[in-house]
Amino acid sequence: MLQTRILPSAENAHAAPLLIKSLLLSGVRYESSREIVYRDQLRYSYTTFVERIARLANVLTQMGVKAGDTVAVMDWDSHRYLECMFAVPMLGAVLHTINVRLSPQQILYTMNHAEDRFVLVNSEFAELYAGLADELTTVERTLLLADAGQEAVELVDSVGEYEALLASAAPHYAFAEFDENSVATTFYTTGTTGNPKGVYFTHRQLVLHTLAMASVVGSVDSVRLCGTDDVYMPITPMFHVHAWGMPYVATMLGLKQVYPGRYDPEVLVELWERESVTFSHCVPTIVQMILGAKAAQGKDFKGWKLIIGGSALPRALYDAALAQGIQLTAAYGMSETCPLISAAMLNEQLQAASEDEQITYRIKAGIPVPMVEAALMDADGQFLVHDGKQQGELVLRAPWLTQNYLREPEKGEELWAHGWMHTGDVATICTMGFIEIRDRIKDVIKTGGEWVSSLELEDLISRHPAVREAAVVGVPDPQWGERPFVMVTLHPGQQFDARAIKEHLKPFVEQGLLSKWAVPTQVAVVTEIPKTSVGKLDKKRIRVEIEQLQADSSVFLSTL
Amino acid sequence: MLQTRILPSAENAHAAPLLIKSLLLSGVRYESSREIVYRDQLRYSYTTFVERIARLANVLTQMGVKAGDTVAVMDWDSHRYLECMFAVPMLGAVLHTINVRLSPQQILYTMNHAEDRFVLVNSEFAELYAGLADELTTVERTLLLADAGQEAVELVDSVGEYEALLASAAPHYAFAEFDENSVATTFYTTGTTGNPKGVYFTHRQLVLHTLAMASVVGSVDSVRLCGTDDVYMPITPMFHVHAWGMPYVATMLGLKQVYPGRYDPEVLVELWERESVTFSHCVPTIVQMILGAKAAQGKDFKGWKLIIGGSALPRALYDAALAQGIQLTAAYGMSETCPLISAAMLNEQLQAASEDEQITYRIKAGIPVPMVEAALMDADGQFLVHDGKQQGELVLRAPWLTQNYLREPEKGEELWAHGWMHTGDVATICTMGFIEIRDRIKDVIKTGGEWVSSLELEDLISRHPAVREAAVVGVPDPQWGERPFVMVTLHPGQQFDARAIKEHLKPFVEQGLLSKWAVPTQVAVVTEIPKTSVGKLDKKRIRVEIEQLQADSSVFLSTL
Repeated sequence: MLQTRILPSAENAHAAPLLIKSLLLSGVRYESSREIVYRDQLRYSYTTFVERIARLANVLTQMGVKAGDTVAVMDWDSHRYLECMFAVPMLGAVLHTINVRLSPQQILYTMNHAEDRFVLVNSEFAELYAGLADELTTVERTLLLADAGQEAVELVDSVGEYEALLASAAPHYAFAEFDENSVATTFYTTGTTGNPKGVYFTHRQLVLHTLAMASVVGSVDSVRLCGTDDVYMPITPMFHVHAWGMPYVATMLGLKQVYPGRYDPEVLVELWERESVTFSHCVPTIVQMILGAKAAQGKDFKGWKLIIGGSALPRALYDAALAQGIQLTAAYGMSETCPLISAAMLNEQLQAASEDEQITYRIKAGIPVPMVEAALMDADGQFLVHDGKQQGELVLRAPWLTQNYLREPEKGEELWAHGWMHTGDVATICTMGFIEIRDRIKDVIKTGGEWVSSLELEDLISRHPAVREAAVVGVPDPQWGERPFVMVTLHPGQQFDARAIKEHLKPFVEQGLLSKWAVPTQVAVVTEIPKTSVGKLDKKRIRVEIEQLQADSSVFLSTL
Repeated sequence: MLQTRILPSAENAHAAPLLIKSLLLSGVRYESSREIVYRDQLRYSYTTFVERIARLANVLTQMGVKAGDTVAVMDWDSHRYLECMFAVPMLGAVLHTINVRLSPQQILYTMNHAEDRFVLVNSEFAELYAGLADELTTVERTLLLADAGQEAVELVDSVGEYEALLASAAPHYAFAEFDENSVATTFYTTGTTGNPKGVYFTHRQLVLHTLAMASVVGSVDSVRLCGTDDVYMPITPMFHVHAWGMPYVATMLGLKQVYPGRYDPEVLVELWERESVTFSHCVPTIVQMILGAKAAQGKDFKGWKLIIGGSALPRALYDAALAQGIQLTAAYGMSETCPLISAAMLNEQLQAASEDEQITYRIKAGIPVPMVEAALMDADGQFLVHDGKQQGELVLRAPWLTQNYLREPEKGEELWAHGWMHTGDVATICTMGFIEIRDRIKDVIKTGGEWVSSLELEDLISRHPAVREAAVVGVPDPQWGERPFVMVTLHPGQQFDARAIKEHLKPFVEQGLLSKWAVPTQVAVVTEIPKTSVGKLDKKRIRVEIEQLQADSSVFLSTL
């Protein structure tokens, strides 16, 4: 270690720690009269927002919440969730954002594993919660979250209803200062193997992530978020990596924020229109859902900027969205990365390129944001060259990556092998610095001694006019090791088979863009492709379904 | 202290520290072919920039520089200075940015006090340096900084010339990682009493300041800096709080950067035009200098955004700049604050206000940037209300405030009384959150039991058409305690006296905006108002000059 001149910690005592409270104070200073909107339920100013967080802190304190406790939330995307994202960590407690799309057994596992002591439960989940209550080992009290007009329900161990309790609580709370390395949030990754794994983030990590993200959203070409005119609506669940951390960014910048509750495409379009939403983020599936909404037909969404993450952004989807005025920009991250790692910002050189070339970059994972270091590593821990060709596992360093899995330190060691965070993604990095994700390591199809990217095939096949969505997995093959198998959903009234794929991919093979080994010869047309709880293709379940389809001789599978 | 769940430090070992190196890596990833320009001397891409910093690190290492050493620079604003701002801290060494406008004795004092071991000296200062060399107690070696075409000079103890040494050094250097609380920079405040005081900043502080500043420059209305189209030229000396830290911001965002050397107004205007500069920052005096340049006459500077700090921004100057197309926005900070604290960003409400009202806010100190907490304190350490009326000392908390004065801890204790950093400025904070600096505590004029702001009088008097610049100080008065005394410079061919001031201020008194006690009755017209080394009014020297003027019966002073 270099012998630098390190500030003595006694002397450093005056330095303000990096705490989530600061983000809230910044927002209300910028725009005290801007609004937080929850569907057609509620709207209030930032001034009220700050007061409500103080009220909530008083309610939680009265309920028994102390620093170090874990407070869990089961809710759709609401102002309540936003308030919990501030009030719970500001008390020094840990917010557990429960993934309500997991199976009841998995939810139970995560709640016991995280040692939740308090739970805030939306009335829609009261019955689900009642089914778990007997098996919950650490929960002491609950609090009911109910929309106005919702049917009255009983909630086990409840101290009362959120809005009623807030209304009678004092609107001031003296939030204490504490160590910035205090854990602020925890949630579970939705891996498709084994039990969900808990990740956790500190105040310091969330503040740094917010600051870095703010420097980017202000500078992404055509995706300018700013203190003056953007209106923000998340369409990534708040239980999913704190809605990608963007509510913290939006609050720090004092933006108007719109929370849509449970995602109903018709409601999303209505809120977009009524509240003049200009900035959102979601997984590709949600874009498809919005474009398919009745209210979206023939509508011009000009001015709506969507950051796309969670899965690769298919070119066909990019084009379809743009045709209706929606500007998509890809970004990359994962639960373990808080999540932002990179965004597809166009540099000066690319801004001068043809539109078509620009789009090929806009759908990549993009350029790392400030403070992130990205590299490619081979299986032996050796670094690979960033030439746009060499493929290796994407590994990362940054100040906001999760340091471990909750009470599973052996998995944390694997995550941090060689001192870099392993993403499990195979990628290239080009000389301009763009990361391109080629595939999940475990989804790469090894055929005839070559590596074929399932993502690339999905992107190309989904450009076929008949195809609505495509998934590709490798299936065992005695001759080639593995062969790509395609599962598709189609647009209404369309037909599709293995011959159509061959025809469609021919030009790419002829241009040398795709190996002839990569052309799939087996396809199943289905009505729905299995997805994970956060809307990604669920390759594990897809493999199981394909096995079943192959075993069921009554089902027609198209093969060449 | 709350019992939060603190991340064990062993577990936190994977977190990337906040180091200046990261800012450089971010810039070159965003815009590898963007240019760094130094006058008509040199221009190179960010790719070359990164290589040159590695070369410089090799040169410094060969020269004997080790982590923990202090490396001083005496230069005008150049690409070399920018390179030192990265290479020196990236080696774990401390960069001392010498204020070359101080007197030789003061420079000597600061160099010995900071324990400079290495000095990089511009050939223009070689003679000055030779005069100090015998009395320097810690310097071991020097390095010559020479522009192409500059006369060859001898420099005491020199290892060679910068460009020549860089050319022969290797373009790679493996920069090590170290504790983010390592000191990165040091420099001296230009206080007008006693010896200069050394302040110092760590990597962590500079990175956090950069991130917070980037979130602001992207969101200040009409002052959008961004990754895509702004061109940056500092007009605040790089020795002065690292040119307000903006070169770090510009580098992180990958902006084109233009360095103007010594400030010649004709050269500044020429560079603005030739390099399409859109974003700068300076003290008010520099704006006046630019508007007065021969090359500026009749020129439309449309699109040039200037952040103004260091001194209050007079309304008259705002109007004069706007008349030539320059958009000014006030910001506030000081040496001890790294420096950014607040900027005059207009919120939604003000954007809907009349232009005149907008301007009254644009010239205030503004709204604190993210992570900064500002408050008003009275002499007993009690907080005052933010109602736009109560005046108190502005006190601050933030993660990037200097923690102490170099080897003068007793002064540090005073700075941090009651756990807040004391600015020495009297201010109000309005309900919208805008800070307005009323005066330096020691410059407030106590007359007839009232506090009169010298800044306010300066602003009002400088709006008189005859007045070029105005300074106001309190002078002892047997009847009133103190009375305001005005010193002015005039536009060519203009006349001015105490009666003119009375006339000019009458409407403000009548509207109740100014107490009648505040109207100055004594004025001295001079050809130049004394300034500090960084271009602020030097009230100490002004007081001395006024005493001399008053004592000299041959000088005419206008009095009512």
